[in-house]
Amino acid sequence: MDIKLKDTERIDDLQLKGLKLIQDTNGFCFGIDAVLLANFAKVKKDANVADLGTGTGIIPILIAGKSKAKKIVGVEIQEEVYEMATRSVKLNNLEDRVEIVNADIKSIDKVLEVHGYHVVTSNPPYMHMDGIKNPNDKKAISRHEVKCNLEDVIRAASRLVMPRGKFFMIHRPTRLVDIIELGRKYRLEPKVVQFVHPRANKAPNLLLVEFMKDGKPELKILDPLYVYGEDGKYTKEINDIYANEDIGE
Amino acid sequence: MDIKLKDTERIDDLQLKGLKLIQDTNGFCFGIDAVLLANFAKVKKDANVADLGTGTGIIPILIAGKSKAKKIVGVEIQEEVYEMATRSVKLNNLEDRVEIVNADIKSIDKVLEVHGYHVVTSNPPYMHMDGIKNPNDKKAISRHEVKCNLEDVIRAASRLVMPRGKFFMIHRPTRLVDIIELGRKYRLEPKVVQFVHPRANKAPNLLLVEFMKDGKPELKILDPLYVYGEDGKYTKEINDIYANEDIGE
Repeated sequence: MDIKLKDTERIDDLQLKGLKLIQDTNGFCFGIDAVLLANFAKVKKDANVADLGTGTGIIPILIAGKSKAKKIVGVEIQEEVYEMATRSVKLNNLEDRVEIVNADIKSIDKVLEVHGYHVVTSNPPYMHMDGIKNPNDKKAISRHEVKCNLEDVIRAASRLVMPRGKFFMIHRPTRLVDIIELGRKYRLEPKVVQFVHPRANKAPNLLLVEFMKDGKPELKILDPLYVYGEDGKYTKEINDIYANEDIGE
Repeated sequence: MDIKLKDTERIDDLQLKGLKLIQDTNGFCFGIDAVLLANFAKVKKDANVADLGTGTGIIPILIAGKSKAKKIVGVEIQEEVYEMATRSVKLNNLEDRVEIVNADIKSIDKVLEVHGYHVVTSNPPYMHMDGIKNPNDKKAISRHEVKCNLEDVIRAASRLVMPRGKFFMIHRPTRLVDIIELGRKYRLEPKVVQFVHPRANKAPNLLLVEFMKDGKPELKILDPLYVYGEDGKYTKEINDIYANEDIGE
């Protein structure tokens, strides 16, 4: 296959239906967060899906592999990263179902269909801009709110999702108050939360949240997800997520 | 001591410094919620404390026993229940530090000093009004939002607490979104949340929240609290809370 790699890039095997991903070893590489989010998102057959701040394209590619979604669009602001994600789509022969677009989610109306998506997903930058020395640094843009903040993400998700459609996000528990307040502000009602703890007895360090556009108020908190067991190895739940072949409904 | 009991009342030993509580066996009896909240509330020496919807007076009496608070006022709307709580205060010889007032928290300004409290606590009714057949039923008033709803409680707490003062509440995780949104509405920033799970691997069924008046946004989620261990008995953490002799700072 005619996919060229740059010097600092490598191809990783996603251990799912032979899917592969190009990653830049100098850039941000995907972590467990993306895998948890792709697993948490409920994607029905023939759904239209949009992923905001898609980075390497990991989430659209995982969702393509694990669901029967019709079309998954990943939106990435950084041209170089967008271009790399596009090559990963080709590498997996997913061009008919996955498209990466190079756009700013702050003006998402100009590129994607408003209220045209059953499902929106996002694994946005977690950290505030404080202390960012080089705002052009690719890793900083993936981790910190350099190009967009939480409100931009939630606003864009609200614009894209159709009535009663779902928005799935992973973020830090420290931002829970903002997540909830901004969700309500943009008519995305938080319906389901799952906290991810490094291990039992430890405070959660990640949270998965499912919003419904114009959903009725009532939050369900799922059983907690523990990443490591007492033996220091992944728990059964995490191994199941990595082994799970079908996240669709 | 000249404390009279009605036919349906009994005196319970609180297992803390000899404190006792009168409860009406036909009414709402305190549960683990009140004990958890009294333990969770940080009460400094000489603090002024107000407890909203105090019921039997369990929380003011526990805080009096466990802290060096100067004065603790419990507010109770039901005259009969207020009167019973007042007898419990006398039974414990706490009249100099604990006072129960018979008032409606919806007009709290008329009875308590606005912004006069370092700490406010509340274990409010958890449930919506839906399906309440007898709105005069004492148990229903304690459990359901008959006389006041969550917004009334949060608004009253915000009126009573001084700048940078704390409001501690226990409630259901299903109401987390409302709790957070109403907190921000009334300038009570959620600073600390602890989820209480019936056991590890089970979703939380209670949450403890600490708000700070005009606090800076940033939420800390504490290590989870599990009530029962795998052996079906209270965990060490819960036993410690029941045994804890000093919740003050």
